[in-house]
Amino acid sequence: MNQPLSAVTFPDDGCELRIIDQTRLPGALVELALTTLPEMVDAIQSLRVRGAPALGVAGAVGLAVLAERAAIEGPATFDADMATAATALRSARPTAVNLAWAVDRVLAAGQVGGASPTVRATAMRTEASTILNDDIAMCARIGVSGATLLRSGMTVLTHCNAGALATAGIGTALAPIYTLHARGETIRVYANETRPLLQGARLTAWELDRAGVPVTLITDGMAASVMRSGVIDAVLVGADRIAANGDVANKIGTYGVAVLARHHGIPFYVLAPRSTLDPHTPHGDGMEIEMREASEVRAMGGVATAPGHVTVHNPAFDVTPAALVTAIVTDSGVFHPPYHFTA
Amino acid sequence: MNQPLSAVTFPDDGCELRIIDQTRLPGALVELALTTLPEMVDAIQSLRVRGAPALGVAGAVGLAVLAERAAIEGPATFDADMATAATALRSARPTAVNLAWAVDRVLAAGQVGGASPTVRATAMRTEASTILNDDIAMCARIGVSGATLLRSGMTVLTHCNAGALATAGIGTALAPIYTLHARGETIRVYANETRPLLQGARLTAWELDRAGVPVTLITDGMAASVMRSGVIDAVLVGADRIAANGDVANKIGTYGVAVLARHHGIPFYVLAPRSTLDPHTPHGDGMEIEMREASEVRAMGGVATAPGHVTVHNPAFDVTPAALVTAIVTDSGVFHPPYHFTA
Repeated sequence: MNQPLSAVTFPDDGCELRIIDQTRLPGALVELALTTLPEMVDAIQSLRVRGAPALGVAGAVGLAVLAERAAIEGPATFDADMATAATALRSARPTAVNLAWAVDRVLAAGQVGGASPTVRATAMRTEASTILNDDIAMCARIGVSGATLLRSGMTVLTHCNAGALATAGIGTALAPIYTLHARGETIRVYANETRPLLQGARLTAWELDRAGVPVTLITDGMAASVMRSGVIDAVLVGADRIAANGDVANKIGTYGVAVLARHHGIPFYVLAPRSTLDPHTPHGDGMEIEMREASEVRAMGGVATAPGHVTVHNPAFDVTPAALVTAIVTDSGVFHPPYHFTA
Repeated sequence: MNQPLSAVTFPDDGCELRIIDQTRLPGALVELALTTLPEMVDAIQSLRVRGAPALGVAGAVGLAVLAERAAIEGPATFDADMATAATALRSARPTAVNLAWAVDRVLAAGQVGGASPTVRATAMRTEASTILNDDIAMCARIGVSGATLLRSGMTVLTHCNAGALATAGIGTALAPIYTLHARGETIRVYANETRPLLQGARLTAWELDRAGVPVTLITDGMAASVMRSGVIDAVLVGADRIAANGDVANKIGTYGVAVLARHHGIPFYVLAPRSTLDPHTPHGDGMEIEMREASEVRAMGGVATAPGHVTVHNPAFDVTPAALVTAIVTDSGVFHPPYHFTA
């Protein structure tokens, strides 16, 4: 099989942030080497890199790259440049908690009292590499834990993209798929296309197909009849945030898939890094849901699909109550209900 | 309010089949006046006119128009021309049972022993007008019966398009909406966009908006969270075929909506002409499901949304078990479970 392509890489021998331009998929596989702050901010804002874990790694590596360049090109303004860069990277996607967290970690690693910009930049590179390698290890652990819930010959359904393209490693929801596939086990996937932004069609179908995993693409409305036909053994999805009681915020459409899975007696698994756990939010009702532009629903690829002025409801996420979640898999292991995540 | 625009009309003072070109919606409202067999066959095959009731009316009016023209332009070949036209119209959409049934009715009405082509064409016009008026009356009766299940202030969810654009009248699933709206009652609609062919976005949102009914467009994956938020009081959908036990074949995605409605305690109503009842099919498991082209799922409006070679599952319909159907409304009235439709 082809190794799944990670969203973000940081070459040992080069001072650049490398990403796959996800806005070009599935039409073209374009790798970008980013070296300036405006390039990095643009890549994050325009969703060339997306997915909570990948955004964190991109922010960390991006700041480390800028530090090494600043240490050479303008050591006198190093502190001011780092502060500016950190602020701009953090605010490129203000709701991405991972991004701010990772940028702050790398910035703090460079606060070495009395050291030269070169020494401080090296410390920042080390910290960014650690964040990247931790992400790869997190995915691998989720893959091994999640694989214990599946067996060879199974067919799973997934929604959105929580794959290699959302992380620096082999993904979260797709990690057990890649883990079993690498062991030579047979595992098949149905991918919901995931309107409005089609991450399932553009990204999940693309990366699984490229890695040699058998994948069948369906529209979101087909999941119910596919489940009723008996071919789906489990549902695997990622998460954007998990409340203390196990309620899960994830891409819009996830909750409906969970209801359908329960109706058909199919286990519904959520796979996410433990950094997604938010023990300070007691349950999902307290989670704010981002509302997005009507144009995402009224058009596709620049082609109008609805009257241009019609009212649209376009929430980015929904909340799946813990009662519908069979198990939650993190890099700390497999959790079963009742869920009680603590700080 | 604007009167909803019917898919098919037959002017008393003109010899032409008038349709709204539904492939141009929602971008442009284009009415076509069809007078030749190739134009009519093309309009049916390319889905410029669609929806089971509308197809039947289009076939009936189309054949009557061709008969009147043939009676003037070539009475000597009237019988041969009618046979050719009937065969071509019937086979333009071979799975549309209504189309063949309506064409055959008009053809039979022209079999007047010893009469001139002009007299026979007049009989065919009368029969086609009857079929069209019956369709308008069917919609009106469904509207009145369906309205008894709703009340002012309600918000309903619908899937696909079973509206005026699918009939010669005010639609089937949307008929109670227009009936209440015409009475001055407040009724709001959420419309699923209905991938892959987007009849909800292109047609339902367009016709409701045009008629002044408040409509909100959502992607299919959003229906679950909208239901959970408590705003949906009822689901109204059409049907392509209803088995003797009440199992309902309808546009792909309908079954999932029915499961979600049950989970949230929301009544799920099916509204369709009694010609949709198929007492010879005991239950839904015996219904053949048309599989359509992968390209419908892999692209939208000519823009690729997925890898060009990825495997796609694209059923046109799904089957909703009778157990999930709160009531079935036809032009004969409201039916409650257990359903036992007989010939």
